Amino acid sequence: MPASPIPHLHAVILAGGSGTRFWPLSRELSPKQFVSIFGGVSLITRAVQRVATLVEPGGLHVLTNARLADELRNHLKAQPELDGTRIEYLAEPSPRNTAPAIALAAAYLLARDPEALMVVLPSDHLLENGERWERTMRVAAALAASGRLVTIGLAPDRPETGYGYIRAGAAIPGIAEGDVVGHEVERFVEKPDRATAERFLSDGGYLWNSGMLVARAAVVLAELERAGELAETAESAGGRALAEAARATAALPPEMWTAPAQRARFEALPAVPFDKAALEVSPVVAVVPADLAWSDVGSLLALEAVAPADERGNVLSGNVVDIESRDTIVYSADRLVATLGLSGLMVVDTADATLVAPKERAQDVRLIVDALKAAGAREVAESRSSLRPWGSWTLHLKGPGFQVKTIEVLPRCRLSLQSHTRRSEHWVVVEGAAEVERDGETITLGPNESAYIAAGMRHRLTNAGDTPLKIVEVATGEYLGEDDITRYEDDWAR
Amino acid sequence: MPASPIPHLHAVILAGGSGTRFWPLSRELSPKQFVSIFGGVSLITRAVQRVATLVEPGGLHVLTNARLADELRNHLKAQPELDGTRIEYLAEPSPRNTAPAIALAAAYLLARDPEALMVVLPSDHLLENGERWERTMRVAAALAASGRLVTIGLAPDRPETGYGYIRAGAAIPGIAEGDVVGHEVERFVEKPDRATAERFLSDGGYLWNSGMLVARAAVVLAELERAGELAETAESAGGRALAEAARATAALPPEMWTAPAQRARFEALPAVPFDKAALEVSPVVAVVPADLAWSDVGSLLALEAVAPADERGNVLSGNVVDIESRDTIVYSADRLVATLGLSGLMVVDTADATLVAPKERAQDVRLIVDALKAAGAREVAESRSSLRPWGSWTLHLKGPGFQVKTIEVLPRCRLSLQSHTRRSEHWVVVEGAAEVERDGETITLGPNESAYIAAGMRHRLTNAGDTPLKIVEVATGEYLGEDDITRYEDDWAR
Repeated sequence: MPASPIPHLHAVILAGGSGTRFWPLSRELSPKQFVSIFGGVSLITRAVQRVATLVEPGGLHVLTNARLADELRNHLKAQPELDGTRIEYLAEPSPRNTAPAIALAAAYLLARDPEALMVVLPSDHLLENGERWERTMRVAAALAASGRLVTIGLAPDRPETGYGYIRAGAAIPGIAEGDVVGHEVERFVEKPDRATAERFLSDGGYLWNSGMLVARAAVVLAELERAGELAETAESAGGRALAEAARATAALPPEMWTAPAQRARFEALPAVPFDKAALEVSPVVAVVPADLAWSDVGSLLALEAVAPADERGNVLSGNVVDIESRDTIVYSADRLVATLGLSGLMVVDTADATLVAPKERAQDVRLIVDALKAAGAREVAESRSSLRPWGSWTLHLKGPGFQVKTIEVLPRCRLSLQSHTRRSEHWVVVEGAAEVERDGETITLGPNESAYIAAGMRHRLTNAGDTPLKIVEVATGEYLGEDDITRYEDDWAR
Repeated sequence: MPASPIPHLHAVILAGGSGTRFWPLSRELSPKQFVSIFGGVSLITRAVQRVATLVEPGGLHVLTNARLADELRNHLKAQPELDGTRIEYLAEPSPRNTAPAIALAAAYLLARDPEALMVVLPSDHLLENGERWERTMRVAAALAASGRLVTIGLAPDRPETGYGYIRAGAAIPGIAEGDVVGHEVERFVEKPDRATAERFLSDGGYLWNSGMLVARAAVVLAELERAGELAETAESAGGRALAEAARATAALPPEMWTAPAQRARFEALPAVPFDKAALEVSPVVAVVPADLAWSDVGSLLALEAVAPADERGNVLSGNVVDIESRDTIVYSADRLVATLGLSGLMVVDTADATLVAPKERAQDVRLIVDALKAAGAREVAESRSSLRPWGSWTLHLKGPGFQVKTIEVLPRCRLSLQSHTRRSEHWVVVEGAAEVERDGETITLGPNESAYIAAGMRHRLTNAGDTPLKIVEVATGEYLGEDDITRYEDDWAR
């Protein structure tokens, strides 16, 4: 039974994060929310599915940054699960943690609907969708409509020291969906030590803080301003400035949000989480406890959920041969990884990079990413493959003056009509049927046929068949960057 | 000063081994002797250089097996260091350890020169070449001419438990080159335990058994027969059969050695090392102590010699980023390898496979190779690149019905005139100048130009310039095996 939309509800999916602790599976241009190792569907696709049927028509918003917006659009357009789903992409002026982002989204929605309710959820968490989730959302939305800042608290099933906790207070009467009810919040608790986490678990009154929020847009801004006036903490002090910057920016068309003046305005704001800036000092918070499987996929240890452990406690996934290791994660995306006699390690292998570290240092993977960034390593920014609305490409080889890609085009899809000034392309069809337009003339190619696209030629590649088209592209030229492209026509309005 | 040849001296380089303990750097078709990580020159190239100026003209022989003979020929022909060096390749009927191999080589040389002296040396060890090595060889050859089976003993510089030892006896008078003299052999000692190895080191009278032998070919066979008659050990019992099989096989032209009858004859022989079959029971052995840097490159721990250790004892080589590891070897042939907080491990990365194991289990890498063989994994047999007499090729991508290689052709070299029945090839020149012959017609291509070679077409690729030619080849077809080739003309007589 499809859920009915909740009146005035809009979803704001936060998708600006880079997830550096998930490298090498995540990259700056292919961040953690794109990872599809859990059940073959990306985390952000699941996040969209989670709220798509609950929001008003046109109520799906993805809030990201200018650099990632195109990648997100391509990624989500390519998901068959989301076929026909309309999503609005909003790029915030500058990444300043969640408080400025949520304030901006609230101001934007408020300007369009004074009664707007918003659910804010991360794009890169794992969460059990379904009927129980929906009831949780309905209770949260009803509480939010009554003026509350509503958080979702997850029932803990282990003494986790990696999450913040919420101490739930008395149940709030009058609003319930089956056994799902809201509670007052006694207090928010930072990540605890092990002993405290064990006490929280046995106590039963503590919940994991999931970072999910449901509230009226107007209340979000009002509570930020109130927190700023109370100024109980240094981090909440900027509440009024936050709300003002958000209102001023939201009054502009979204494509102007990333203009230099707006960027400068946001860069002057405190980069604080919404928890600190509002929730922890607001008198109107509530929490809805949810008994749902959840993970923030906060480190590569999340790979333990990808496959069942063997009898020695190893989780081996992909093209892996192991002899006598124990308590070890080995994840291979493609290549052969052989491990022997390891203990407590994780080995994560991708097409262009391999990481080896003890599991207990999973959080320190960011040190590797920092070192790679400092060295300007392309393996931290770029991914070897990229989804496109028409299919995908994968880079296999880059040499001086040439590169080799495979390009897959979905049935009946076509790339933009385009040209390059500095590179030529040689296409060999290896699967399917291609229609190739070159300077106005069209030829048809089958497997083992090829076409040459000289630099400057207006060209377009179309899958002329009902099965996927696969070509090998050998590009040659002094400069091979993706930005050497002029588009004349595009089915995807790029 | 180039060394003068030693009269009647022939070199027999044993190159049949697969070096499974060096995987993934070695493969069945690219074994350890091809590895060129030590100073950029392969181990077998150094072995040939070691003896090339000491032997009679035409006296260089590489003894291998049928499967490796072509790869060895291609590999050595491609070495600029060996330009113009004539080498004879002999394929033994069946790999049966060193005793049958040395017996066969002895019989072969004896049939050509009754006074033949032979130096037998492994192709996959590291050894310091130079003036001291030459004096060692001259002393060994003089002792051999007098009827001795002469081994080369290396002066130990550490209490190594991985090598066998030789206890040297009294000096043999009358033959010397400076301070290099021969000694009687008191006894051979198996790999010792640590305490014994330390005693050997401080004693000063023990030498590492290098596996190098110098002897008259006639004496090699006579001593095998004598050992067989003495039959002091079970392993020496087959000496007469060994010598007989060797003489009978050597009487045939070498191209018939691998015929089924010869294979069957060799497969019936005991697969024993020459040390056991002759040296340990012969009364005429001698040892020449040599104070030379040497390693049998017996495991991946040899990678510690590739680069200097950092301040935490790590040896990092290639595209490696490390944070806080210690006592760890990381070797990357090409891709990025990131390591964090490791201790006592080795990480060895190649284009298609990665190995991670504790250094203390270096000898157990064969377990991985066994498991891969059992699973039929191609990563244990094939290498991604292959040297050819005209240059090299590297396989980058293999998909259903297609594969992508880069092909490099040396200046003024050409491939054979050839055709394929089941695959077509698309060539794109990315560097240099190509001359492409197709069914008798010849075209010339520069960078960014391409040619199509249909299945069945007689074709030939020539580097028409004075700089290397590099092409990307996209091959398509149901079957893409290297054995789909008919050669009509070949500069390399293949």
